[in-house]
Amino acid sequence: MDNNRRAPRPKQNNTFIFGIRAVIEAVRAGQDIETIYVQRGIAGNLILELKTVLADHTIPMQTVPVEKLNRMTQKNHQGVIAVSSPITYQQIEDLIPAIYERGETPLVLLLDGLTDVRNMGAIVRTAACAGVHAIVVPLKNSAQINADAIKTSAGALFNVPVCRHASLYKTAQFLQESGLQLVACTEKTDDLIYVPDFSLPTAIIMGAEDVGISNELLRLSDHLAKIPMAGSIESLNVSVSAGVILYEAVRQRL
Amino acid sequence: MDNNRRAPRPKQNNTFIFGIRAVIEAVRAGQDIETIYVQRGIAGNLILELKTVLADHTIPMQTVPVEKLNRMTQKNHQGVIAVSSPITYQQIEDLIPAIYERGETPLVLLLDGLTDVRNMGAIVRTAACAGVHAIVVPLKNSAQINADAIKTSAGALFNVPVCRHASLYKTAQFLQESGLQLVACTEKTDDLIYVPDFSLPTAIIMGAEDVGISNELLRLSDHLAKIPMAGSIESLNVSVSAGVILYEAVRQRL
Repeated sequence: MDNNRRAPRPKQNNTFIFGIRAVIEAVRAGQDIETIYVQRGIAGNLILELKTVLADHTIPMQTVPVEKLNRMTQKNHQGVIAVSSPITYQQIEDLIPAIYERGETPLVLLLDGLTDVRNMGAIVRTAACAGVHAIVVPLKNSAQINADAIKTSAGALFNVPVCRHASLYKTAQFLQESGLQLVACTEKTDDLIYVPDFSLPTAIIMGAEDVGISNELLRLSDHLAKIPMAGSIESLNVSVSAGVILYEAVRQRL
Repeated sequence: MDNNRRAPRPKQNNTFIFGIRAVIEAVRAGQDIETIYVQRGIAGNLILELKTVLADHTIPMQTVPVEKLNRMTQKNHQGVIAVSSPITYQQIEDLIPAIYERGETPLVLLLDGLTDVRNMGAIVRTAACAGVHAIVVPLKNSAQINADAIKTSAGALFNVPVCRHASLYKTAQFLQESGLQLVACTEKTDDLIYVPDFSLPTAIIMGAEDVGISNELLRLSDHLAKIPMAGSIESLNVSVSAGVILYEAVRQRL
């Protein structure tokens, strides 16, 4: 578990659910939950029940020191706080068939480990403009969807489906099996973004701000595609990179 | 004079010069100055001398209440504070001939009233990646080049020449006379960004976040060019728009 992330404070669009039983029931009822924070070292039957319930859901759980929970609420949290999500996460398996049935050519965006909330929001805003059908993020190491992300997205987070999956690798495999080519936007190639045929069903992968796309996803990809750069020192912000490659897809599809 | 902008506090890259005589000498010596703040209602021979000196320079002057100056420094500012600029502004008239002489095809970016410091920095970063030769900003109603802009530009503000001119309209006319076509990136057209021939010498105009490009610049432009949008509600952030249209130019020039 990653304990280094700061526990968030309550914001406009995120509310807290605290107490083990309350959180269990919220998960069972299908409430939209961003993250569940669990006190380090806590044990007992209810915690076991929570973990059992969570096994059927795609909700990240983080173990944190009790002090973090105490900073989040002054009420009796019993070692468990769930942060509600302003959006309803969806499953990519449900979306792809519907896109094909509408006679459309899927354009999906995979965000591999993007942790900056504003970059996340900016990319979702661009994705909405470019007609992206769905965005896929991993369960762990992904920016929280909070009020800042909603604001930076200019509300587009309410319009573009976001899917959260435990393994981006397995999701990418599923997309390939569903007829989508995987195009990784990366500097680790000589092929430019004008090489792939984006008129085909396509999933574009964008990497984390610092480390880029994971090696296993790079190996799985059908195309590595590089945005041309003047000079050697410069690099684009990931949200601008996403705009450039998404709009290359838009251009080819017009 | 626009009195509504907040007087900035000193930052890593901006230092203050205060006292009328000191500011006059700094301007005369060609120091890089972002803005000069002058106390409202102040008069005297030295102020007249300052205004005379400024007539020969492209440095914005803002009249502000004395309280703003007092917040900027506790020292005896004598009603005048200059904020130094981290960059050296250049003159587009000097740059264009040099671009042609190097055998290159000018690609210039005009930012019409962009006031968000981070958008400014982000656009300069993208411009560096796209090989833009120069960025032109107006003397008034433009984001300050400060530490935040430098940071958001990832240092690119030190690599791409920024030109500051009193009239963007006259500068645009000069660019046309120098053989550059003016392409305005705007929603107020049905022509898409794929229509202009960017292999020609080109100046691209991006508008302010809220009001877009001024009507006089739109009328002067050779092409109005729109980025295609899925749906009708959405709009791109101006820094992403700049990336999309600049990279359309890059694509055509490859």
